[in-house]
Amino acid sequence: MDWSTEIAAAAERIKGYVLRTPVVTVENGFGLNFPIQMKLEQMQHTGTFKARGAFNTLLSSDVPEAGLVAASGGNHGAAVAYAAHKLGHKARIYVPEMAGPAKVALIQDAGADLEVVPGAYSDALDKALAYEAETGAMQIHAYDALGTVCGQGTVALEWEEQGLDADTVIIAVGGGGLIGGAMAWLDGRRRVIAVEPETSCALNAALKAGEPVDVEVSGVAANALGAKRIGQICFDLAVSTGAESVLVSDEAITQAQHALWRERRQLVEPAGAAALAALMSGAYLPEPGEKVAVLVCGANIAPDPFGQAT
Amino acid sequence: MDWSTEIAAAAERIKGYVLRTPVVTVENGFGLNFPIQMKLEQMQHTGTFKARGAFNTLLSSDVPEAGLVAASGGNHGAAVAYAAHKLGHKARIYVPEMAGPAKVALIQDAGADLEVVPGAYSDALDKALAYEAETGAMQIHAYDALGTVCGQGTVALEWEEQGLDADTVIIAVGGGGLIGGAMAWLDGRRRVIAVEPETSCALNAALKAGEPVDVEVSGVAANALGAKRIGQICFDLAVSTGAESVLVSDEAITQAQHALWRERRQLVEPAGAAALAALMSGAYLPEPGEKVAVLVCGANIAPDPFGQAT
Repeated sequence: MDWSTEIAAAAERIKGYVLRTPVVTVENGFGLNFPIQMKLEQMQHTGTFKARGAFNTLLSSDVPEAGLVAASGGNHGAAVAYAAHKLGHKARIYVPEMAGPAKVALIQDAGADLEVVPGAYSDALDKALAYEAETGAMQIHAYDALGTVCGQGTVALEWEEQGLDADTVIIAVGGGGLIGGAMAWLDGRRRVIAVEPETSCALNAALKAGEPVDVEVSGVAANALGAKRIGQICFDLAVSTGAESVLVSDEAITQAQHALWRERRQLVEPAGAAALAALMSGAYLPEPGEKVAVLVCGANIAPDPFGQAT
Repeated sequence: MDWSTEIAAAAERIKGYVLRTPVVTVENGFGLNFPIQMKLEQMQHTGTFKARGAFNTLLSSDVPEAGLVAASGGNHGAAVAYAAHKLGHKARIYVPEMAGPAKVALIQDAGADLEVVPGAYSDALDKALAYEAETGAMQIHAYDALGTVCGQGTVALEWEEQGLDADTVIIAVGGGGLIGGAMAWLDGRRRVIAVEPETSCALNAALKAGEPVDVEVSGVAANALGAKRIGQICFDLAVSTGAESVLVSDEAITQAQHALWRERRQLVEPAGAAALAALMSGAYLPEPGEKVAVLVCGANIAPDPFGQAT
C-alpha cells in the first residue's frame, strides 16, 4: 500500500467538496507554558473531518442505484448523508441510540433515511450489514476501510501544506480512521500521540493485547470515540509507525472542552476536545522545546447552542 | 496622521499579546453563489478584536497608579480588564445594564472592578469620566481614540499579511473603532462596507447628516454595536476613504448567526454575524467576480453555551 500516493490522490479527488480548515497558533494558552498549533477541522462540513472520507469513497466508487448505507455513532452518518446528497445518491444511515439528537438531526437535515437502533454502535453496524446484503446498497465503513482512511489522511496532508510546524501531532481516536490516515500520511516523520478516553480505549487495549480486542465503551465522548474494537488498518499503522497511546479522563475532556470555549470561543463536542485534554491534563508531557500540534476534530454538541435538535 | 506608520507600530507593539487569528475561505457557503474569505477575529483574547486596541493603548502610555477606567457595552471592558491584568494594572469598568451577564462575568473574571450602570452606554461613559476626574485613572475610550483605532487597525494589517484576497472587506460597525482602523490601514486600496443594524446605525445617520449625530439604539446586537453616536475618527475616515454604509435587520443578523453555527460551527454573538448578514440578506450585493471578505468580530454570546454567567 503506497499510502502517500493514495492520500495525495484522495486530496485531489475531494478538492472543492471539502473545506480547507484553518490553522492557528496559540501561545501560552490553556494553562500550558508552550505554544501549540491547532487545526480547526471541526469547521469541516457536518462539523467533523468525516466528510473527507465520505467524499473520497463516493468519488472513487461506482455507487449502486440502491445508494449508500452506513452505521455510525452519528458523525460518520452525517458526513455520508451530506456527501450522498451533494453527489445525488440515496443514503440509509443506522445510528445507535447514544448518537444523540444533534447528530440525528444533522443526518435527517441532509435528506438521508435514518434508523435509530437500540444498543451500541455494533448493533447499528449489524443492521447496516443486513441492509447491504438485502438491497445491494454500498456500505461505507466509518473507519476500517481504505477509502475512509485515505480520505481522513488528507487532513494531515493539508496541514503540512499549511505549514504544520510540529514534532508531535496529537489526535483523538475512536475507531481509528482519522489517526490512521494521519499515521499513514506522516509515516513516522512526526510523532503521533493517540488520545482515547479511559472509558473508550480500543486502540490502547489492542496495543496491550497485541491485536484488536473488544472493549466496553462509555463516557462523555462515547458517541464519537466509542468504537468497540479498533480498526485493523489503524492498529497495523499504529504498530508500524510507533504511535504512542495515552488515556484521558472524562473530567479532563470536559475541562478542555470548556477551555476551548472560554479561551478561544470554539465550541466543540467532547471528542473534539480530547486531544487538547491530553496536554492540559499532563497525560502527554512534551519535552522542553518539543513543538506540539493538536487536531480539533468535531463540534456536534448536543443540544446545539440554539437549542435545535433537543 | 500617518496611519500606516502608526498601525504598523501598533502591530509591532502588541505582538505576543494578541492572537494572530485564523483566516478561512468558504466556497458556496451560507446560500451564497460566490466564495468568501473570513477572518475569525472572535477567537481573539476575550472573544473580540478589542484586545488589540486595549494592549496598544496600554503599551504606548504611562499608566498612572490609579490604573485604568473604561466605559463599555461589555466587550471593550473585558478587553481592557484582560490587558490591564496581563500588564499588572488596576482597572475599573463601567458597563450599562444591557451588557448582559456573559460580558459582566468576562470582566469580573479578569479581576477588574466592575459597576453596572442603569441606562445606556452613554450613562456608563458619564460615570467613567467622573471616575477619571476624581482619581486620575487613565481613560481608554472604546472607539474614538487614536490608540484604540490604531490597535484595531492591526486586524487589517494582519489580514493582508495572511494573504487577504479581496476587493471588498465587510465589517460591522458600533462606535467605529474596528472599521476605523481598517479604513485607516486599507486607505481606499480595497472597498470597505460598513454594516450596521437598522436599529443601531450611528454611522449611517452621520453620513446622511454630514456629521456625527445622536441615534437611538436597540436590537439584538445593541450591547456590542449600539453606539449612540459614531466616533469622529471613524466618521472622518469613512468620508475620506469613501466607505459604503449598509443596514441589516435583526432577523438577518440572527439568520447569519445561526448559519455560522450550522455550516461552520462558529458560535458568535449577533454583532459577530452582522457583516455576514449583509451578504446573506442581499443588503450588500457584490458584482460578478468581485472578491469579498467578511470579518467575524465577536463571540461573547449570553448565556454562554455552558450556561456560565446566566
